[in-house]
Amino acid sequence: MAAKSNQIRVGILGASGYTGAELVRLLVRHPQAGIALMTADRHAGKSMAAVFPHLAGHGLPDLIQIDQARWDAVDMVFCCLPHGATQEIIAGLPERLKVVDLSADFRLADVDVYAEWYGHPHLAPELQREAVYGLTELKRAQVREARLVANPGCYPVAAQLPLVPLIEAGGISPDDIIIDAKSGVTGAGRAAEEANLYAEVSEGVHAYGVARHRHMPEIEQGLGQAAGRPVTVNFTPHLTPMNRGILATIYVRLADGADAGDLRAALDGRYRDEPFVHLVPEGTAPATRHVRGSNHCLIGVFADRIKGRAIVISVIDNLVKGAAGQAVQNMNVMFGLDETQGLEADPLFP
Amino acid sequence: MAAKSNQIRVGILGASGYTGAELVRLLVRHPQAGIALMTADRHAGKSMAAVFPHLAGHGLPDLIQIDQARWDAVDMVFCCLPHGATQEIIAGLPERLKVVDLSADFRLADVDVYAEWYGHPHLAPELQREAVYGLTELKRAQVREARLVANPGCYPVAAQLPLVPLIEAGGISPDDIIIDAKSGVTGAGRAAEEANLYAEVSEGVHAYGVARHRHMPEIEQGLGQAAGRPVTVNFTPHLTPMNRGILATIYVRLADGADAGDLRAALDGRYRDEPFVHLVPEGTAPATRHVRGSNHCLIGVFADRIKGRAIVISVIDNLVKGAAGQAVQNMNVMFGLDETQGLEADPLFP
Amino acid sequence: MAAKSNQIRVGILGASGYTGAELVRLLVRHPQAGIALMTADRHAGKSMAAVFPHLAGHGLPDLIQIDQARWDAVDMVFCCLPHGATQEIIAGLPERLKVVDLSADFRLADVDVYAEWYGHPHLAPELQREAVYGLTELKRAQVREARLVANPGCYPVAAQLPLVPLIEAGGISPDDIIIDAKSGVTGAGRAAEEANLYAEVSEGVHAYGVARHRHMPEIEQGLGQAAGRPVTVNFTPHLTPMNRGILATIYVRLADGADAGDLRAALDGRYRDEPFVHLVPEGTAPATRHVRGSNHCLIGVFADRIKGRAIVISVIDNLVKGAAGQAVQNMNVMFGLDETQGLEADPLFP
Amino acid sequence: MAAKSNQIRVGILGASGYTGAELVRLLVRHPQAGIALMTADRHAGKSMAAVFPHLAGHGLPDLIQIDQARWDAVDMVFCCLPHGATQEIIAGLPERLKVVDLSADFRLADVDVYAEWYGHPHLAPELQREAVYGLTELKRAQVREARLVANPGCYPVAAQLPLVPLIEAGGISPDDIIIDAKSGVTGAGRAAEEANLYAEVSEGVHAYGVARHRHMPEIEQGLGQAAGRPVTVNFTPHLTPMNRGILATIYVRLADGADAGDLRAALDGRYRDEPFVHLVPEGTAPATRHVRGSNHCLIGVFADRIKGRAIVISVIDNLVKGAAGQAVQNMNVMFGLDETQGLEADPLFP
Repeated sequence: MAAKSNQIRVGILGASGYTGAELVRLLVRHPQAGIALMTADRHAGKSMAAVFPHLAGHGLPDLIQIDQARWDAVDMVFCCLPHGATQEIIAGLPERLKVVDLSADFRLADVDVYAEWYGHPHLAPELQREAVYGLTELKRAQVREARLVANPGCYPVAAQLPLVPLIEAGGISPDDIIIDAKSGVTGAGRAAEEANLYAEVSEGVHAYGVARHRHMPEIEQGLGQAAGRPVTVNFTPHLTPMNRGILATIYVRLADGADAGDLRAALDGRYRDEPFVHLVPEGTAPATRHVRGSNHCLIGVFADRIKGRAIVISVIDNLVKGAAGQAVQNMNVMFGLDETQGLEADPLFP
Repeated sequence: MAAKSNQIRVGILGASGYTGAELVRLLVRHPQAGIALMTADRHAGKSMAAVFPHLAGHGLPDLIQIDQARWDAVDMVFCCLPHGATQEIIAGLPERLKVVDLSADFRLADVDVYAEWYGHPHLAPELQREAVYGLTELKRAQVREARLVANPGCYPVAAQLPLVPLIEAGGISPDDIIIDAKSGVTGAGRAAEEANLYAEVSEGVHAYGVARHRHMPEIEQGLGQAAGRPVTVNFTPHLTPMNRGILATIYVRLADGADAGDLRAALDGRYRDEPFVHLVPEGTAPATRHVRGSNHCLIGVFADRIKGRAIVISVIDNLVKGAAGQAVQNMNVMFGLDETQGLEADPLFP
Repeated sequence: MAAKSNQIRVGILGASGYTGAELVRLLVRHPQAGIALMTADRHAGKSMAAVFPHLAGHGLPDLIQIDQARWDAVDMVFCCLPHGATQEIIAGLPERLKVVDLSADFRLADVDVYAEWYGHPHLAPELQREAVYGLTELKRAQVREARLVANPGCYPVAAQLPLVPLIEAGGISPDDIIIDAKSGVTGAGRAAEEANLYAEVSEGVHAYGVARHRHMPEIEQGLGQAAGRPVTVNFTPHLTPMNRGILATIYVRLADGADAGDLRAALDGRYRDEPFVHLVPEGTAPATRHVRGSNHCLIGVFADRIKGRAIVISVIDNLVKGAAGQAVQNMNVMFGLDETQGLEADPLFP
Repeated sequence: MAAKSNQIRVGILGASGYTGAELVRLLVRHPQAGIALMTADRHAGKSMAAVFPHLAGHGLPDLIQIDQARWDAVDMVFCCLPHGATQEIIAGLPERLKVVDLSADFRLADVDVYAEWYGHPHLAPELQREAVYGLTELKRAQVREARLVANPGCYPVAAQLPLVPLIEAGGISPDDIIIDAKSGVTGAGRAAEEANLYAEVSEGVHAYGVARHRHMPEIEQGLGQAAGRPVTVNFTPHLTPMNRGILATIYVRLADGADAGDLRAALDGRYRDEPFVHLVPEGTAPATRHVRGSNHCLIGVFADRIKGRAIVISVIDNLVKGAAGQAVQNMNVMFGLDETQGLEADPLFP
């Protein structure tokens, strides 16, 4: 619903994609935030309910073009625009606005790495220096002080939440990490592309972007920070016939003397008090359907039959913990709110 | 979470099916109700999270056998047991308990009709006389006073919400109603049956129970009450490869002089102020995915090309408005609470 | 594989859609036909395997632009081009070529009806007079003599195969026919449209084109011919989350004195010796998954509980009996071959 | 159809599961084999069409109990019975019968390994010594002479076809092999189990049997034979919401000096003339949907970004190349027929 007087007034830039819709779904239930402004150039003039009928009945503002936005009506913006475009738009926003950017534009601290993977120079390097990488559980203190948060990519969330504590605890080798990831289709957005048609996705599975997916440098950046030196990983994403969910099956080499129990202990120590990240009981494997629609990340750890190896499995909903939920969590931290506000809903299963 | 002191203390009998899980999902967010007791004979001794991992983390009581239940711990029960068994169990409950029964056992006011369709005499006819049929929008006053509410079947909800007002308004003939219904798989419950295996359901569609589905007499009971005389309908259910949702495409004959606009007007008049039942904009067709996970019912009306006919389409989530959500709505009314409590969540799409 | 000397040399115009691919799948197994030419303007220069990897390994000719086609290399063409474009292209083909057109361009005998439903005048009315409507089981004699066959639409196949014999036998009223059809997604083709994305189609069902789908006049044309006078029907299509299949649930009013057994007898009499159309055993309901990948049509008949009514259910695979298989069947008849050649494969289940 | 006089007369033991149905689908099109006998204890007395309606119309013999079988009516049998039961039944068959066993009972050459993984001593160790492991491309000469062929498991087919030639060629280390496999649901058979319900499988993915799946020793046996010494692998299967298909993403360490091109060359050399195993073009990733319904195995090879590593991806249809098709291929070899007979059909896509 529209923002009330005691609420944070939120704008959503690029509201007509799946991530934008998911932000709306979460924010209309948020007790301390209200949606004051939504842009969607292609759908400007329409109601959100015309674009997403499931979001009818909230008295939301109509969709407008971004150049019609009156920035004094909002206290912060979520930016869901395509990469590249995003940098200049955020650079042009009033400085007093807090920003959570859900594109890839400010995730890579090294603008040269950005240029290498995205094929053009970074357009707002000074903002890049200011931006905080918003994987809340790992960067809470920085997010609290941030004006501009780069919301992490969906795959990097699923990979870093289990791996960063394991590397930091010295439980695994950073040099032999294989991340086999399976994703639902909404990770590709709502753009009309042949590859995402029902008939091309249903009833089958395939790998894509093998050894060249753009989430790779983001994962390596996070793991490298944990290791204190550059890290190269294998990251192989697969498209799975489901709407939501990422499951990362991660094959790791144990540090000398470590075993799977040590990995469980390291993760338990790190996440025991976290509201959204949980170890599953020993011997059980987390499933994406157990986090569908929620902001939770579940992690399981198994000993491998190959001596000195272990298997770590994590699951998230790519649209929630992998995008909109993570963004709301960041907003909550940036504004000093209870971190779980707007994010309490349980998974929807089946 | 477990009931707090100022909350209605709720018991769920038969909590290990999909309907039980859905009740838990809704009730853990309910501000004025708490779960105090859950039974599941086959899974007694387990935590609910062991049976439904997506429901972990709420401090719920463990599952127990029904004969271990201490009824003084609860103020009301939701009964999700198989038909037949239900009648005697409810008959044995302390009279002070309010009951919402989600089985078919108390839906048919005429115990002879029950005996005809279920193949055995009704085992609690005196309770049947007391039971109120709990399609809240149509029976709100009676539900408010009820001790025992018979929660309606999923198909009957989708059929009666649009049809009862149309018959009562005299807009359509009660004698030529064809209800072609498409349902998701969870309507069949969690029992392990070949017919509900993924490989038997996915990537295809078929009709079942043609001219003999047990929801037929329930629909005819409701429409007959509206018409003031017995009514026979065509009701043909189809199994569709989706988890949740019922779409009822209803072919009706208009009363003399009536047109599709009159039907829209009748429905708008009836439901304009209802929180959960909505007419969709003219010319648009409601989709099950726009109510998935929510307690909403959407209704669309189209003129037919056949003169004197119209097409009415309704959609619900069979586990929510067709079962658990409807049941919570009834509880809210029975206890004088705000009818939407615990039911505010928007649909989950995609 | 490419045509051998003793084979009919076939061209496929518009080979890069699902219907084109399905023609290839069937024709590479056809003992008396070979593919000599395939056009696909957007993919010209590529191999068919580059567009459809499942069709690798047959030594097929590369895709070319239609204006590069050398017509002396082929004896007949299957035309899978968009409606409108098709009329002029077929008008420009050498007269000696036999043609099976899979578009809608020549299905409606009355060019005024075409103009009304397609929004522009017919561009080849003289060809329209020559065209034979190719629902083989109902028009075999005419197809045998035809040069240009208009392959029927997928929904009209599913509707007419059961209904035409019933009307001709006088078993049902032609004035009260309701066709509730459920279709898989491939009926919409391979074009990249938002409405056909996995996330928009999976896990839900909805009606579309209510009271205005373009297959309606085609159905009414066929039923009108059977009735000997104009007929108006209700036809309501629904999009179902599956790749292939149409299920038509048809609600009919019985002629005076007729019952469901009479309908079964009429269909049995008509189709007993047909290789592709079959009555299912009494009391069973046909399922789309039982015809997936095959050229079969299954039909079931049920008495309705409403006196004087019956329910007829038919299923086909929209890409086979509803498109490419029907087209090959027509080719077989046009060339005097065994009608089942290339069409013998059983359904693929699961 | 029933066996003709010049055909191999085939019996199928345990015909009422998905694998049995798939054998029927393939064999009814086989020019030199006919089905003379089918057993299915639970469904004895029924027609196959009553159990699998998609297989109607072939004049197949009715299903019988196994103790009603007259063995003189058949020349060979396919055995699709549960493991354990199979050993004694095959031991009791007349010696003149050739047998392709699709259970796990004779796949492990070492009966102690069998006992370890299956929890009971092998019941026919002398037959085990005679049995030939039937992965045709790798054991063609032995299969040709065999009386009893142990048809390989679905996962072991997908793993060994790419890995055995790579190990034999010395291109990869046998000591650091990680096989992340994604399977469709039919691999679990048609048994009614909660875990395989539509609602438990659709719209999600999860790992299962981590570090303890029974296909592991079979894979290690094959790779150990190729390496000339015992090998331990990581094999992690995942259940994917699709009916058919296995995709194995295999992470390998290159031998010193080798690169991905060397792996491609080794596979190309091994499979260039094989009818069913194919390298896909460089840079493309094979998809399960491109082999659905066919006996093909597609293999792709990618360089990894981690130095000294490569990624090998293979896909099969678990019911065809992973079960029934592989079995027919073995029969063809055992009887000196053209190896592709009955197996020519292309994949069904979409």
